[in-house]
Amino acid sequence: MKEISALQKERAAYQPKLPKALMGAVKVKEGEPTQSVANQQEIKELFPNTYGMPLVEFVSGDKANEAEMNVGVILSGGQAPGGHNVISGLFDAVKKLNPNNRLFGFLMGPGGLVDHNYVEITSDFIDQYRNTGGFDMIGSGRTKLEKEEQFEKGLVILRELNIKAVVIIGGDDSNTNACVLAEYYAAKNYGVQIIGCPKTIDGDLKNDQIETSFGFDTACKTYAELIGNIERDCNSARKYWHFIKLMGRSASHIALECALQTQPNVCLISEEIEKNDMTLNQVVEDIAKVVACRAAQGDNFGVVLIPEGLIEFIPAIGRLIQELNDLLASHGADYKDLDKDAQRQYILSHLSKENAATFETLPEGVARQLSLDRDPHGNVQVSLIETEKLLSDMVDVLLAKWAKEGKYNGAFAAQHHFFGYEGRCAAPSNFDADYCYALGTSAAQLIAAGKTGYMAIVKNTTAGTDEWKAGGVPITMMMNMEKRNGEMKPVIRKALVELDGKPYKTFVSHRDEWAKNTCYVYPGPIQYWGPSDVCDQTTKTLQLEQTK
Amino acid sequence: MKEISALQKERAAYQPKLPKALMGAVKVKEGEPTQSVANQQEIKELFPNTYGMPLVEFVSGDKANEAEMNVGVILSGGQAPGGHNVISGLFDAVKKLNPNNRLFGFLMGPGGLVDHNYVEITSDFIDQYRNTGGFDMIGSGRTKLEKEEQFEKGLVILRELNIKAVVIIGGDDSNTNACVLAEYYAAKNYGVQIIGCPKTIDGDLKNDQIETSFGFDTACKTYAELIGNIERDCNSARKYWHFIKLMGRSASHIALECALQTQPNVCLISEEIEKNDMTLNQVVEDIAKVVACRAAQGDNFGVVLIPEGLIEFIPAIGRLIQELNDLLASHGADYKDLDKDAQRQYILSHLSKENAATFETLPEGVARQLSLDRDPHGNVQVSLIETEKLLSDMVDVLLAKWAKEGKYNGAFAAQHHFFGYEGRCAAPSNFDADYCYALGTSAAQLIAAGKTGYMAIVKNTTAGTDEWKAGGVPITMMMNMEKRNGEMKPVIRKALVELDGKPYKTFVSHRDEWAKNTCYVYPGPIQYWGPSDVCDQTTKTLQLEQTK
Repeated sequence: MKEISALQKERAAYQPKLPKALMGAVKVKEGEPTQSVANQQEIKELFPNTYGMPLVEFVSGDKANEAEMNVGVILSGGQAPGGHNVISGLFDAVKKLNPNNRLFGFLMGPGGLVDHNYVEITSDFIDQYRNTGGFDMIGSGRTKLEKEEQFEKGLVILRELNIKAVVIIGGDDSNTNACVLAEYYAAKNYGVQIIGCPKTIDGDLKNDQIETSFGFDTACKTYAELIGNIERDCNSARKYWHFIKLMGRSASHIALECALQTQPNVCLISEEIEKNDMTLNQVVEDIAKVVACRAAQGDNFGVVLIPEGLIEFIPAIGRLIQELNDLLASHGADYKDLDKDAQRQYILSHLSKENAATFETLPEGVARQLSLDRDPHGNVQVSLIETEKLLSDMVDVLLAKWAKEGKYNGAFAAQHHFFGYEGRCAAPSNFDADYCYALGTSAAQLIAAGKTGYMAIVKNTTAGTDEWKAGGVPITMMMNMEKRNGEMKPVIRKALVELDGKPYKTFVSHRDEWAKNTCYVYPGPIQYWGPSDVCDQTTKTLQLEQTK
Repeated sequence: MKEISALQKERAAYQPKLPKALMGAVKVKEGEPTQSVANQQEIKELFPNTYGMPLVEFVSGDKANEAEMNVGVILSGGQAPGGHNVISGLFDAVKKLNPNNRLFGFLMGPGGLVDHNYVEITSDFIDQYRNTGGFDMIGSGRTKLEKEEQFEKGLVILRELNIKAVVIIGGDDSNTNACVLAEYYAAKNYGVQIIGCPKTIDGDLKNDQIETSFGFDTACKTYAELIGNIERDCNSARKYWHFIKLMGRSASHIALECALQTQPNVCLISEEIEKNDMTLNQVVEDIAKVVACRAAQGDNFGVVLIPEGLIEFIPAIGRLIQELNDLLASHGADYKDLDKDAQRQYILSHLSKENAATFETLPEGVARQLSLDRDPHGNVQVSLIETEKLLSDMVDVLLAKWAKEGKYNGAFAAQHHFFGYEGRCAAPSNFDADYCYALGTSAAQLIAAGKTGYMAIVKNTTAGTDEWKAGGVPITMMMNMEKRNGEMKPVIRKALVELDGKPYKTFVSHRDEWAKNTCYVYPGPIQYWGPSDVCDQTTKTLQLEQTK
């Protein structure tokens, strides 16, 4: 018998709450035909069979659907708390529709479908995973489903297992691919439906229809717990500046949410830095100003939050990286044999004037990293740059300069942290446990209703669970055309932090006060039992966005 | 109005549970005279006024003591969850004895006593801090109270505030100094009592009388939450080895406790490595063997726990560091001007043969760090060595060698973490909240009973709170003579991991299985409400140690 923790034991008994509309028999309420958010003509041409379908809402019905169907499920991409609960919701709903129905999980991501690796999900099997974190039930992977050959290979096993529909649980890219697959199977009349499900701790898969992606709530609360603990330490010891990098490369939602929860002295928002065309030196100067201001009042301590993707959002560095990628790709061999100094000279003499200037302002270590380490495609490995250390080093240098000029008289010592793996597999909060279970249930009902190319959705999530509204949104509705690897592609539009949105504006209206004074808030660990205001609060982002 | 989190709000209402014996009026039950654990003659001579006092236990009494007394309190050293609750317990008990009694907190550690910085702790003030983490109520500091001049300066403010006793909340060193101060005031007949209180997340302040130091429970549970989350990620993604360093330089209790809670693939125990006189290469080889064994069964992932103090416990490196400290201290100036290679040569040619051999086996970066960076006293800054990266780099090199020899055929990629600040200021678990409150109450009763040179203790802590036994232990009882900075000093004996103790033996009996198989346990975040088996469990260490 596998040993499990006391929390796992007790938490296994939790029965996720369902919206009223999903509790018994459901009826499908269809809306008007939909359009994609942009590039309607192109998207329509690319998805002739799955474009323009109506929004779907489930309302209480009086006749139980007893659909006979086997279903497949896939976890795609990075882990997010609640994935197991999507599968639990799906499993329970599929079995409730008809006890003879079977659910199959494809192993280690989309690759499991292509390579025919799967497991049947049974009652005993799933009971070990209810309300747990992680994707270890069936594993996940990053294989992209995008080639017809993969689709055809997958079909073989789907036919063999008599699978009527596959639920793909993933982020924006995985759901885009789910839609391509749905369109392909529909065009070929294979009779296999594809349903997507919005997953990602990054929070960048959201729009008018999707209020939030699952996992964002739990991951942010876990990071906020740690940030709060560090703030309390910081405010007790009063001698360190903590530079905390937070996972999430393509948007700053996590950093922003954590800032709203913990009120740190500084939180960088990549989208703002990009919009204002700030240089790295300007970012550093802004932080140093806060350090100096606090030092002047005797507070030689503080907390800085940094989104993981920062570097790529700094326009000057983005342009530099782009030119470096081209330059070094085309001059790979002879460049490689040069020594370090010669490499630096080579780069400086070949870059455009503007990018050479940016390159020269970078600290030596970072410049080296940009000119040396490349990934297998020849690209600069930006993710290897330890932004939290880079920034604190540069702040230190600038403060030393200010000290010489008599403009600063404090003590600056930094500690560094990077939080990512700490939160991606946390046991889901009550919110994520319920939300995911409802998403899984919705997915089952979409399948029973014969839908394909839809994503399961649950709305009105700031109300009580009872009042949540479940349904489906055509994936094409969320698409537009974007350049990917040099080609225009139909993709789900990624949600960046909106600079005219309430979460960001709320942050901006407080940040000067938070910078100067010590306004730390300590959220503490996620609670599963206890007062509802502690256990059942949604993220601040969701609360602010859904407030009319 | 300062913004606080929902958890802070609800948790503020928690009333810590007290042992029956401390609930109403108490009576002092004294045991036999005590002796120090070793060096009885020397300790007795050094502490003529505070040596040999009896153990004290509080039992229910029938007559309320109405002692009039003002009390001071000091937080000393690193933060530990529960410090605020010691002060709350002390405050409530002092006020209950006599409402006219006053409690003063000295600010930012022992320095506050010497420099006369203090605040009066009132009811409104303390209510903001009940059941919270951190030491921010009055701050902490590392000033050592050890000179008569400091003692005399402190006395001035104690007299001014009419303070009868000071409670010093700290680790082994701070309590040693508390005893020196108690002895000094007793010898001078100043009429000021000093009471200690056992604090440290490291868990190395324990003995026959002290079952555990406060903060260890909460800190370990917070680290175990994170390790469990990482294990779940590790087991979902199945592609990384996570090397996790855990705070605690002088003992491996935290790493051991976390291992017992989470069952990682590897956990290094410094005390074992020291006892077996292992080299760094042997430690690395042991880890690499586990990696290779798991790779052979297709599991290219795992979790390794590393105690922060590891490097200093490796005997060969300990000896090397000692010689380096001497060597570089005596040859500071001329050495400094040499270039890197010349410095390396200088060191190699001056070291003893054995230590030179150890130096040569070190990776370049570590050797550089040992030969370059020194603290203000000229000592090697061991704490700057990123052991978690050092070990994974060395494992990587060894695996590459084995791969060439055909002995290993896996994929090794590492992620690194260091957890310390994340747990030191977490809000105390129910155990630490209760334990600390009881310690504070005991401290007040020790003062009322006229005791000095005692540490407040609470025993029988694996039973229900009701049945806990509170009292005091003469600090001299825990002392022996040890060499500190070249001089023999009376100090409280530090508790290392006992290699014949139950916690370590339990770990050893499972570790081969945990290494090979994936036996991860996911403790999840600390819960304050909910089922008692989740909320009120003590550490595994305590459970195992107290099991007869």
